[in-house]
Amino acid sequence: MKLKYIALVLLCCLTIDNITAQKAKTDDQDVEMIRKIYDEALGKGESYQMLEFLTKQIGARLAGSPGAAAAVDWSKETMEGFEFDNVFLQEVMVPHWVRGQKEIGKIVNSKMGSVEVNVVALGNSVGSGPNGVAGKIVEVQNFDELAALGETGIKGKIVFFNRRMDPTLIETFEAYGGAGNQRGAGPSEAAKYGAIGVVVRSLTNALDDHPHTGSTNYTPNLYKLPAVAISTNDADKLSRMLKDDSELEFYFETHSQMLPDKLSHNVVGELKGSSKADEYIVVGGHLDSWDLSQGAHDDGTGCVQSIEVLRILKAIGYKPKRTLRAVMFMNEENGLRGGRKYAELAAENKEKHIAAMESDRGGFKPLGFTFTAEDKQVERIKGWAPLFVPYQIYKFDTGGGGADISPLATQGVPMIGFYPDPQRYFDYHHTAIDTFDKVSRRELELGAATMAALTYLIDKYGL
Amino acid sequence: MKLKYIALVLLCCLTIDNITAQKAKTDDQDVEMIRKIYDEALGKGESYQMLEFLTKQIGARLAGSPGAAAAVDWSKETMEGFEFDNVFLQEVMVPHWVRGQKEIGKIVNSKMGSVEVNVVALGNSVGSGPNGVAGKIVEVQNFDELAALGETGIKGKIVFFNRRMDPTLIETFEAYGGAGNQRGAGPSEAAKYGAIGVVVRSLTNALDDHPHTGSTNYTPNLYKLPAVAISTNDADKLSRMLKDDSELEFYFETHSQMLPDKLSHNVVGELKGSSKADEYIVVGGHLDSWDLSQGAHDDGTGCVQSIEVLRILKAIGYKPKRTLRAVMFMNEENGLRGGRKYAELAAENKEKHIAAMESDRGGFKPLGFTFTAEDKQVERIKGWAPLFVPYQIYKFDTGGGGADISPLATQGVPMIGFYPDPQRYFDYHHTAIDTFDKVSRRELELGAATMAALTYLIDKYGL
Repeated sequence: MKLKYIALVLLCCLTIDNITAQKAKTDDQDVEMIRKIYDEALGKGESYQMLEFLTKQIGARLAGSPGAAAAVDWSKETMEGFEFDNVFLQEVMVPHWVRGQKEIGKIVNSKMGSVEVNVVALGNSVGSGPNGVAGKIVEVQNFDELAALGETGIKGKIVFFNRRMDPTLIETFEAYGGAGNQRGAGPSEAAKYGAIGVVVRSLTNALDDHPHTGSTNYTPNLYKLPAVAISTNDADKLSRMLKDDSELEFYFETHSQMLPDKLSHNVVGELKGSSKADEYIVVGGHLDSWDLSQGAHDDGTGCVQSIEVLRILKAIGYKPKRTLRAVMFMNEENGLRGGRKYAELAAENKEKHIAAMESDRGGFKPLGFTFTAEDKQVERIKGWAPLFVPYQIYKFDTGGGGADISPLATQGVPMIGFYPDPQRYFDYHHTAIDTFDKVSRRELELGAATMAALTYLIDKYGL
Repeated sequence: MKLKYIALVLLCCLTIDNITAQKAKTDDQDVEMIRKIYDEALGKGESYQMLEFLTKQIGARLAGSPGAAAAVDWSKETMEGFEFDNVFLQEVMVPHWVRGQKEIGKIVNSKMGSVEVNVVALGNSVGSGPNGVAGKIVEVQNFDELAALGETGIKGKIVFFNRRMDPTLIETFEAYGGAGNQRGAGPSEAAKYGAIGVVVRSLTNALDDHPHTGSTNYTPNLYKLPAVAISTNDADKLSRMLKDDSELEFYFETHSQMLPDKLSHNVVGELKGSSKADEYIVVGGHLDSWDLSQGAHDDGTGCVQSIEVLRILKAIGYKPKRTLRAVMFMNEENGLRGGRKYAELAAENKEKHIAAMESDRGGFKPLGFTFTAEDKQVERIKGWAPLFVPYQIYKFDTGGGGADISPLATQGVPMIGFYPDPQRYFDYHHTAIDTFDKVSRRELELGAATMAALTYLIDKYGL
């Protein structure tokens, strides 16, 4: 009996020893390589300078705009400047929505007279034209309340969707998702009941004067209502005033329009693989941004971090087995045409993608990654987690990835979402204040290093 | 044999089950209570409003200043307003250093003529007086280089300490520590070799125009040299110019002086314990700040978070077993008199402190805590770590705590340092830009909730 126990214990020890030994062997190299990656990013990083140019010299770059075209040129030249093995464009036709002149929003018949509020047209929305939209305004929190009011309560009026993001959710993207249908589907839902326009509370936990734009999606065969986002401070003001006076009237004017599709491009930079050059690992962000801002956190940071991943690995002399691609996707914000085109071409060219990573949650302090992949792939990555602890990278969870790489994921490619801390993202998201100065150099650099470290491990060990 | 194995497996299962059951029992209550704490902080939090008043209405509050006195009054009134069980002051004599009129710094004989640079007097430093300090300037990286130059190379000159914080260190406080002796001991080291003044590179990884003040400590019986911190951009400029022209001369003028000690106060708010009222748990920050700024991250955030811990626990109806104290320590920045006084009084009054927690690393996204305590106490706290994972709190490590609670730690009290992400702290630390707008409401609130959750667990289970 005793012997058997001993045997059992020995068996356990041997197993543990084997694991430890195996792990230690790879760890020693990996520990050193990952340290080099972070040293390069933090000591000789280029991501911050790249971001400064992209945001301050180029600035806003909505698909189809001159800014987007300039960003395409800049990405190509930048990656060529770093002497990547191959840099090329992928042609893609993109929607071309333009905002036109600045929007007007006001409460017209309050006791205080006319009260101006901060609004912006929702992305892809039709314009009101110069005569604007004027009428009584009705506040609802959700589509159930809208349906309950029905045509009787809604027809001929402006609908004001005022549901807050839930501030108690730690995962702000979940809170965003919980309020998002107001912006995405609100205009078409309101159209069902004969509304004449829509005002949506900005999707943010912050209380301030900056309205947040973002796409709305019209349901086919329903009347397209003009629609604006209102700043949270003004949403609260409007709601308070409506409680005092339900006869309030609202006026807004938008001049947006959808022009014919336009030719644009994804930009791809490659480091060619040595032994498995026909296997691809994608690291990407989206090059387009909303028209209101410099598109710093959304998604200038993701673009420069993706370029930086390849630059770092090249700079420290790492020779990848697989072909690594930094991909600047075009038109994530209002069409996803670039992401779709990339996946389409990958399928057409029978390119074997072993992983696709995206950074599109801002350039904040990196916490880790989330995965949409097979269990064994997720387990493999989780096994590398201890390597990241010295860099205060802790989160390796399932779920999500990135919009631009999701068309690849539908082809079965493991999808990896870079996960920076999500607390500040929606303070800036889709607003005029998503600017260079909101990005911390160290947070940006740490993010790039963290992405490079995982890219290195996937390249070395496969997935 | 087989039976024995089964017995063994059963034993294992039972043990695991017992642990799980035991844990689950406490976890269920704790999970719920911690959720309530975060809900209160994020949904009905008061920390941000408190911080706004403390930073924007009161502002700078160096020990002995009118701002510090106003902050004492405000803390007392605020905690009384929340109807804590007991709010009181502890008298403490503090140093009273004043900066006087704005400093001047310039390179006087460069090829471009006189070049102004951004400097501030180091805290506690003597002033140069209206005639300033003028002379050749010698750059060194460390005290070894200084010693190598010796009296021959240093006498009659200004010493320029220009060692960078190491940007590759993830732990920025370690990088700060690695460069800190230039500011703390540089003036006295330079005095040994007959220098006439000292210029120190600002302690930050950021490259900008904001000089960072902070205390210097003169060695007794050595001549006290006037000393300034220079912004990192100007330090780099000066270094470049010195490489071109080693005969450069520098001029600086400071008007600081140390006045006689002044009466000030720690401010203490209490929630009285139910069953163990004579056991104390301290949660604190320091009320004083440098004179240059609003003292937002250093340490307005720590103060309002400490008050918020008690407010949250009271608001959700938690009745502590032990007496919980929010302590606003006075004079951390240039004397630590408040922290010493608190510990002195605790000893004098034979108060049994079971733990002391401090928030003095900024109001950034909380990552966890660090501990200076006995192993079993650290292990106990680490056992609670899973409760924090849903809130993205991951770090529970040994080391450090807080300056103000360190005198308690020398009495054997377990010391807990709240640990927010350290990447942005030194961008603002001790500068004019440590202002309210640099604080993220959500990060601040999450920090307060995280501190409250640990306070609750320590109160409930002891340590």
